[in-house]
Amino acid sequence: MNDEEYMHLALELAQKGRGKVNPNPLVGAVIVKNGKIIGQGYHERYGELHAERNAFKNCTEPAKGATLYVTLEPCCHYGKTPPCTEAIIQNKIAKVVIGTLDPNPLMAGKSAALLRNRGIEVVVGVLEKECQRLIRVFRKYITTQRPYVLMKYAMTMDGKIATRTGASKWITDEDARMHVQETRNEYCAIMVGVNTVIQDDPLLTCRLKDGRSPVRIICDTRLRTPVESQIVQTAKDVKTIIATSATDDNKKELYRKKSCIVLDVPQKDDHIDLAQLMQILGEQKIDSILLEGGGTLNWSALESGIVDAVQTYIAPKIFGGTAASPVNGLGVASPDEAYHLENSVILKIGNDFLIESEVKHSCLQEL
Amino acid sequence: MNDEEYMHLALELAQKGRGKVNPNPLVGAVIVKNGKIIGQGYHERYGELHAERNAFKNCTEPAKGATLYVTLEPCCHYGKTPPCTEAIIQNKIAKVVIGTLDPNPLMAGKSAALLRNRGIEVVVGVLEKECQRLIRVFRKYITTQRPYVLMKYAMTMDGKIATRTGASKWITDEDARMHVQETRNEYCAIMVGVNTVIQDDPLLTCRLKDGRSPVRIICDTRLRTPVESQIVQTAKDVKTIIATSATDDNKKELYRKKSCIVLDVPQKDDHIDLAQLMQILGEQKIDSILLEGGGTLNWSALESGIVDAVQTYIAPKIFGGTAASPVNGLGVASPDEAYHLENSVILKIGNDFLIESEVKHSCLQEL
Repeated sequence: MNDEEYMHLALELAQKGRGKVNPNPLVGAVIVKNGKIIGQGYHERYGELHAERNAFKNCTEPAKGATLYVTLEPCCHYGKTPPCTEAIIQNKIAKVVIGTLDPNPLMAGKSAALLRNRGIEVVVGVLEKECQRLIRVFRKYITTQRPYVLMKYAMTMDGKIATRTGASKWITDEDARMHVQETRNEYCAIMVGVNTVIQDDPLLTCRLKDGRSPVRIICDTRLRTPVESQIVQTAKDVKTIIATSATDDNKKELYRKKSCIVLDVPQKDDHIDLAQLMQILGEQKIDSILLEGGGTLNWSALESGIVDAVQTYIAPKIFGGTAASPVNGLGVASPDEAYHLENSVILKIGNDFLIESEVKHSCLQEL
Repeated sequence: MNDEEYMHLALELAQKGRGKVNPNPLVGAVIVKNGKIIGQGYHERYGELHAERNAFKNCTEPAKGATLYVTLEPCCHYGKTPPCTEAIIQNKIAKVVIGTLDPNPLMAGKSAALLRNRGIEVVVGVLEKECQRLIRVFRKYITTQRPYVLMKYAMTMDGKIATRTGASKWITDEDARMHVQETRNEYCAIMVGVNTVIQDDPLLTCRLKDGRSPVRIICDTRLRTPVESQIVQTAKDVKTIIATSATDDNKKELYRKKSCIVLDVPQKDDHIDLAQLMQILGEQKIDSILLEGGGTLNWSALESGIVDAVQTYIAPKIFGGTAASPVNGLGVASPDEAYHLENSVILKIGNDFLIESEVKHSCLQEL
């Protein structure tokens, strides 16, 4: 196996931490000695050991003289755990191969330099693109203190998210719907508009066995969420935030009695200010949001610049008619003004397609 | 090289006839002797030699004892050229490897049996799926006497074919638009609705260098095509059909004076009867139609069961707004009633995507 193959293994290990390490990054590590893998590890859970330390812990023989492959530059500071650079030095590692440097501009390259000063060979940038993609949520959060927002919708081949009667069960097949459940399991929070709650009365929980339900966020400018809705009724079990610009304290009290958190958010253009909401949610350590909005909220989110990526599920069927579309709002006047997507990746999931793209000129890229 | 590799070469040769052999099938042939390719050929132009005869013509040595690879079962009847089975026998071919049998139920297997009776080894079904796909237009036409209809549209990632102001130049990039030109070069005819002519005043010609423009068909129930439109003004150079249910003979005369062909088509549900139109066009040897309709015509075409395949170009951008969609009309009420697509193939063309699908339960499959 060569460097890229070991790094690929480290990337695969890192994925196992999905949904459990937020707001920490996903990280994987592999220790190789004389062409043999002697240790593997990944960051398993927030607050627990980092990937490197797990790999050392799992070593089948002393790591002296071995090579460490790690997807992200090791830390060199005391956080919830002592610095990984110390463990690397103590274990007498000869060479460290790093996927990508720390995305925090204040930290980037520090550990690599520290290790080199101790006589350890350091290589940076093996499978760098993949390693950067792995920590895209962390990078956004650490550099902006705001959550990474993934806008997700499912549409037909003619761009409809419902039939002319509003029926939307279902657009995609079971396989694609399970894929959405996995995303819910990974993201810190899920966000919808109040119209979705009124029309569909969803639960928005993760239906995977052993899955973790995300925090539920309802964008509800005028506080119209039905108290009898499933979300409000289950708020004592699944953390639920209602973000509003309303001032009716009596009404707010009704939701609070049901264990909902009512967040006051300033209004902007007849809608809660989504950029402000992201700042508040970031302060609450929410590093990632799956936006399952309707056309109106999706447009507001795009327009306010909070959307980092888009997941478009496409079902091989045609509804026709004048039916709901994934992004509405005002819309652009000229094709030149379109929101551009880039770095698209396409997956076939059962009979359906999934196109994942990044939003060009998102908050992240403007930094 | 093995059988599949030789057949693959024959498939590639066949493609060279695109746009020139209609309503004949695309066919390619390779002759191999002692592991060496001694002859190659394809059906180059309607009315001229078949692929097998071109391959014999190009042979660098006598074909006696050689193996012939051909994408489609050779003909055994006198058409515009004598039967290819005769040439195979005369050239003392030892073995014939056929991609797929003749799709005409009256002919399928006849030549294979004839050759076997003459002591020639015959193998059928090498790369059969690919060979069938190659002749999908021919199969539809020979079995139904109606044209194969490909519905094509370009939309944004949020399912829009224009912005809220109606602007649609451009949805996709240059690469994808050139790909459309290649399709225009292959298809016998191109069909649009009168609204497209009124709104966009397009030429609908093939802009490829050395390209062949398809016959232009305008679905114009009430004869509203502007006489001053580019299409009417250029009808003397590019064959143009106006299909209408109108009865105003004076008006029809205006178009005829400009060299347009005015076709009388019965009306059905306030629209020309598209199934009837397909029958008329089939009688005129139009074997394939590229449907570049707007949302209304696309729906009518789907509903009347004339659409065989769908090409969805998807641009990685978002328009938002309440904007035109690729398929409108009445639309289905329940997701269960959707028109289902199958055998989807996805291509990346520059920054854009192209999903090609077949319509489930199309005319062809109901046979």
